[in-house]
Amino acid sequence: VVEEMLEGFLGTHAGRVRRLEGARALVATPLPSGRVRVITGGGSGHEPALLGYVGPGLVDAAVVGDLFASPPAADVLEAIRATDTGAGTLLLIGNYSGDVLNFEMAAEWARQEGRAVEIEVITDDVGAGTPHDLGTRRGLAGGFLVWKAAGAAAARKASLPQIRGVAHRAIAAARTVAVAARACTVPGSAHPSFAVPMGEIEFGVGHGERGVRRERVRRVDDLVDEMVEHLVVSDPPLRPGGRVVTLVNGLGATPFLELYIAHRRLAGNLDERRIGVHRSYVGAFYTALDMDGFSITLLSVDSELADLIDASANAPHFVQTVQAQ
Amino acid sequence: VVEEMLEGFLGTHAGRVRRLEGARALVATPLPSGRVRVITGGGSGHEPALLGYVGPGLVDAAVVGDLFASPPAADVLEAIRATDTGAGTLLLIGNYSGDVLNFEMAAEWARQEGRAVEIEVITDDVGAGTPHDLGTRRGLAGGFLVWKAAGAAAARKASLPQIRGVAHRAIAAARTVAVAARACTVPGSAHPSFAVPMGEIEFGVGHGERGVRRERVRRVDDLVDEMVEHLVVSDPPLRPGGRVVTLVNGLGATPFLELYIAHRRLAGNLDERRIGVHRSYVGAFYTALDMDGFSITLLSVDSELADLIDASANAPHFVQTVQAQ
Repeated sequence: VVEEMLEGFLGTHAGRVRRLEGARALVATPLPSGRVRVITGGGSGHEPALLGYVGPGLVDAAVVGDLFASPPAADVLEAIRATDTGAGTLLLIGNYSGDVLNFEMAAEWARQEGRAVEIEVITDDVGAGTPHDLGTRRGLAGGFLVWKAAGAAAARKASLPQIRGVAHRAIAAARTVAVAARACTVPGSAHPSFAVPMGEIEFGVGHGERGVRRERVRRVDDLVDEMVEHLVVSDPPLRPGGRVVTLVNGLGATPFLELYIAHRRLAGNLDERRIGVHRSYVGAFYTALDMDGFSITLLSVDSELADLIDASANAPHFVQTVQAQ
Repeated sequence: VVEEMLEGFLGTHAGRVRRLEGARALVATPLPSGRVRVITGGGSGHEPALLGYVGPGLVDAAVVGDLFASPPAADVLEAIRATDTGAGTLLLIGNYSGDVLNFEMAAEWARQEGRAVEIEVITDDVGAGTPHDLGTRRGLAGGFLVWKAAGAAAARKASLPQIRGVAHRAIAAARTVAVAARACTVPGSAHPSFAVPMGEIEFGVGHGERGVRRERVRRVDDLVDEMVEHLVVSDPPLRPGGRVVTLVNGLGATPFLELYIAHRRLAGNLDERRIGVHRSYVGAFYTALDMDGFSITLLSVDSELADLIDASANAPHFVQTVQAQ
């Protein structure tokens, strides 16, 4: 199914994205010369992530794995080789063991060829793992904001250490928690990947993976309040006077109507806590097939990070223009 | 739920869209002076339609009804009054009896105030009704392309008769068929609006409404082929050498991965028929809450219509920039 999806994607977005010959990777076209590349990658099934974010102001390339499976290291290496200008490459991936293993291997091979390659691993999922042990946190929809910031820095011709610094600070500043009422159904399977009884939801789910605890369904406002409380106390805690970018993300089958209702409560809750909102996103940014649920991401921003988030971008599934105020 | 959604929507897109004081209608802000307005409206539950398309290059205002219910005529009148520059207003709505009744009433009231108001009714659903009796066809996702064309013409300061002509030609050129494996579940209800047995799909569904016949589930390629055949023979038939814009639209719970797989087959099928594809869209443009299904729209384009579809637009849920080739 991934090959057929890629064929459909390339047909739809011809002239903006091309596929490498020797690897299952999509590259923005044309690519501006003489600057650092930002490359991501991971399993499929999360569309419009990752491939929908290949384009100016976002990532330069996405290496595409099978459904919920890491792409091979050889494909990552090929994506580095095919795009490297000599200015270096930042690999910016979610914290999944297969992805970390394969991307680190590819980075090592590329360094042996004399290329400058760095990796940053996105660990925004505060629903799983512990706040102080980043290794146990997965990468969720907060990755979109990290790619956005790093991609904007690359478009401004920042150096590899500078872009890596931006990504590192964005990762430290991003926190996500996800809930779901129904898991996704993998093609070829007759049933969802895990069962959630009617009237219950799972708290702290991943993109297709189960949560950390199960709760009774309650009013959306109460659920959002619980999610915000969890986000705000996560390390480092968000304090009154802080400023965030918010992202309410549908996991695949959740109506936009419900996402906007969740955003409404999120905004009200943050306002009560005197946490300012710099900019908000609502939509299906990072899904898990037809999983029925949503996530909330808060990204603490200083003026530099806010400015990078505000920058223009023009990828197949995310276009933002800088508007005169 | 609609009020809460609107609050969340306005919070997310503050500075781009405002709500009228005397009516449940959203208006683009700022609105350019001295040109014709294009206004749409209808029931909620179809997000990102209709409100996500309020902005430069698309519609100037959307009048927002309750869930799957028409907005009152008084709100439509207020939207006309609040945006009218004296150059006139085109109301561009889907073919649902409540909407047609209320928008026609509002148009009549507005004309009595001396305003120039015209209506065009979108009838792209060739799954329902008969090809020759447009009154029996509903308005489906093809409406997006009609708004796009008319909105682009308005942005170029065309006259009301010119824009109405564009809309009229786009409506005649747009054809959509939709299929679904599961109806949507209306908030407050425990079950989907209609039941589709496991292993079957409904052909010719509306946005939340049942289809015209039920079939066994088969391979996506076969289903797409059947949909294309139905679209191509619909009046007026598409012939080899023709040129179309395509839109594969998710109805709410269908993964992007599946939509791109459907697009792949659509493109191959059109290629075999020697029907050219000018531009393609794939995504969730016009949903019915969490309905599990998708639609295919073909819009026959001449060079004028193609140029209007290609024009830039900048609404909350649709941004397109004109790229240098």
